[in-house]
Amino acid sequence: MEQGNVTKISSLGEFGLIKRLTESFPLKNDSSIKGVGDDAAVLKYDSENILVTTDLLLEGIHFDLTYVPLKHLGYKSAIVNFSDIYAMNGMPRQIVVSIGVSARFSVEHLEELYSGIRLACDIYGVDLVGGDTSASMTGLAISITCLGSAVNPVYRNGAKENDLICVSGDLGAAYMGLQLLEREKKLFEEGHDTRNEFSGKEYLIERQLKPEARKDVVEALAQKGIVPTSMIDISDGLSSELLHICTQSNKGCRIYEDKIPIDYQTAMQAEQFNMSLITAALNGGEDYELLFTVPLGKHDLVEAIPGIKIIGHITDESLGQAMITRDGNEIQLQAQGWNSLK
Amino acid sequence: MEQGNVTKISSLGEFGLIKRLTESFPLKNDSSIKGVGDDAAVLKYDSENILVTTDLLLEGIHFDLTYVPLKHLGYKSAIVNFSDIYAMNGMPRQIVVSIGVSARFSVEHLEELYSGIRLACDIYGVDLVGGDTSASMTGLAISITCLGSAVNPVYRNGAKENDLICVSGDLGAAYMGLQLLEREKKLFEEGHDTRNEFSGKEYLIERQLKPEARKDVVEALAQKGIVPTSMIDISDGLSSELLHICTQSNKGCRIYEDKIPIDYQTAMQAEQFNMSLITAALNGGEDYELLFTVPLGKHDLVEAIPGIKIIGHITDESLGQAMITRDGNEIQLQAQGWNSLK
Repeated sequence: MEQGNVTKISSLGEFGLIKRLTESFPLKNDSSIKGVGDDAAVLKYDSENILVTTDLLLEGIHFDLTYVPLKHLGYKSAIVNFSDIYAMNGMPRQIVVSIGVSARFSVEHLEELYSGIRLACDIYGVDLVGGDTSASMTGLAISITCLGSAVNPVYRNGAKENDLICVSGDLGAAYMGLQLLEREKKLFEEGHDTRNEFSGKEYLIERQLKPEARKDVVEALAQKGIVPTSMIDISDGLSSELLHICTQSNKGCRIYEDKIPIDYQTAMQAEQFNMSLITAALNGGEDYELLFTVPLGKHDLVEAIPGIKIIGHITDESLGQAMITRDGNEIQLQAQGWNSLK
Repeated sequence: MEQGNVTKISSLGEFGLIKRLTESFPLKNDSSIKGVGDDAAVLKYDSENILVTTDLLLEGIHFDLTYVPLKHLGYKSAIVNFSDIYAMNGMPRQIVVSIGVSARFSVEHLEELYSGIRLACDIYGVDLVGGDTSASMTGLAISITCLGSAVNPVYRNGAKENDLICVSGDLGAAYMGLQLLEREKKLFEEGHDTRNEFSGKEYLIERQLKPEARKDVVEALAQKGIVPTSMIDISDGLSSELLHICTQSNKGCRIYEDKIPIDYQTAMQAEQFNMSLITAALNGGEDYELLFTVPLGKHDLVEAIPGIKIIGHITDESLGQAMITRDGNEIQLQAQGWNSLK
């Protein structure tokens, strides 16, 4: 964390701090009736389904402030919640944000964090409607709950035999970005000059520090009249998420190694690190892409959406969940995604 | 924390842990369409207003596990959120619960915590519909977001001149309970035998460790057709909360010291500790009683509700916010409530 102006949080008090952090968040959605400032926010959703998701992010477990700028952290904290709402085929509408901060944080630090949250809210059309602000004994804790609306919510458990398995964007880049940042941190701590180390690797760093959620995919699906049979966002790796869909749908699957979308920078970096590229793509996590299934009859419609790749199909449960490698072998998919509790 | 059977959290993994903790929470409300197990919960509220409130509770700041049993902590964590919904004249319907746990916690510890959350949900008719489970570097973090419904939401800003100021239950007991527990902790740490120290003080301990939220008051008001002009729950002390109502309503107030409801045990304990009883009642906090205003014409109706006391009235803003003491003096109300950021 850089040091600039320093205003002690205690000089504002809880209500002063909340006011300072939230006053530049105007309400944009019709469903937001009353935002920050009472015992609870008031919303009105009429006939739509309401979606609710929540994430708790803790310093030292989910983020490392030695290389994550607070503004980026705020942005990403919001995005990971929006992504869960898109994964239900919904649109995020409101968030409530709780933070716990230790004494080393100043008001300016929190303004940085909230500027990232505000940017995400502006871009994705979401309102900040409440939260809680507290001291913490150690480090920074961020808890965000996001509410959204869905006309046709899509679950993980609706995949049918012969459905096409589709994925947006490309996979493994955020994981490679994390490896790069961790390596640079280590080199920096050992006294090396690490400037300009990221030239030509900007995409990997950006995918790790400033991911986006796939609002555009949900909009494109709606525009083409496609309601996926199942959907999930890829936060713990393709393999782990596809297993969730198969397990909850009681189905098997076949995906094809040569169909899995991977960016050029990701491939180059895997080679430089002498790491398995396909492992990074299958198990890397933090991609925040959408993984979904559609009936076979939607093949041409879904293929026409920019950035969507068809990577395989759903099978009967008895066939298990497997990937066909480039050389034609079948390997079982395994959930090796990131898990803070392991 | 007592030690009994010990199952390592890592032996279950994140999904196994979530399943174990949440499988005994059946959905009770029509508005809960889909609970735990997908990217987001799905709710349906039809034409009612949706209320959203959130609280972040951190070990060492909000609770001390040396004297707070985990089951009580779970219960209280839920109750404080329900209380915010009642304070909006609503009914809590759903919660999402996120926890961050350090390595010293076992699965059995978390089951204790969740048994308290479940008890609160059972008694108050609330569904657990989602959450997040994570490791933490130090201590326990609990973040709960509660959703509720309200036909007539009541804000803090609607108090009118001459409205009656009403409060439920009695004040200051939870604060006295906290002082007792802190004193016993100190004595215990110094090697004294502290058994049986709480005889005759059970009410104070219970108000601190196992508070209740005032569902009954919201129901009684509805039954009598009373919609308060303003309402807030008393978490930071009567004085601080009444100032919120006055400030947001642009009004003054007069309350009367001899009308403020105080339990016998609270009064006895204040004397034993040689503390100011009225200060405990005004600024103690954690009472989770409801403070509300009603039009003068509702005097007889509101007075007939068991456990409601009329303690004063709303005035023009120019008269300020003051309490009339037993000897007829006027003292300005001040916000000295509990604030973790001070």
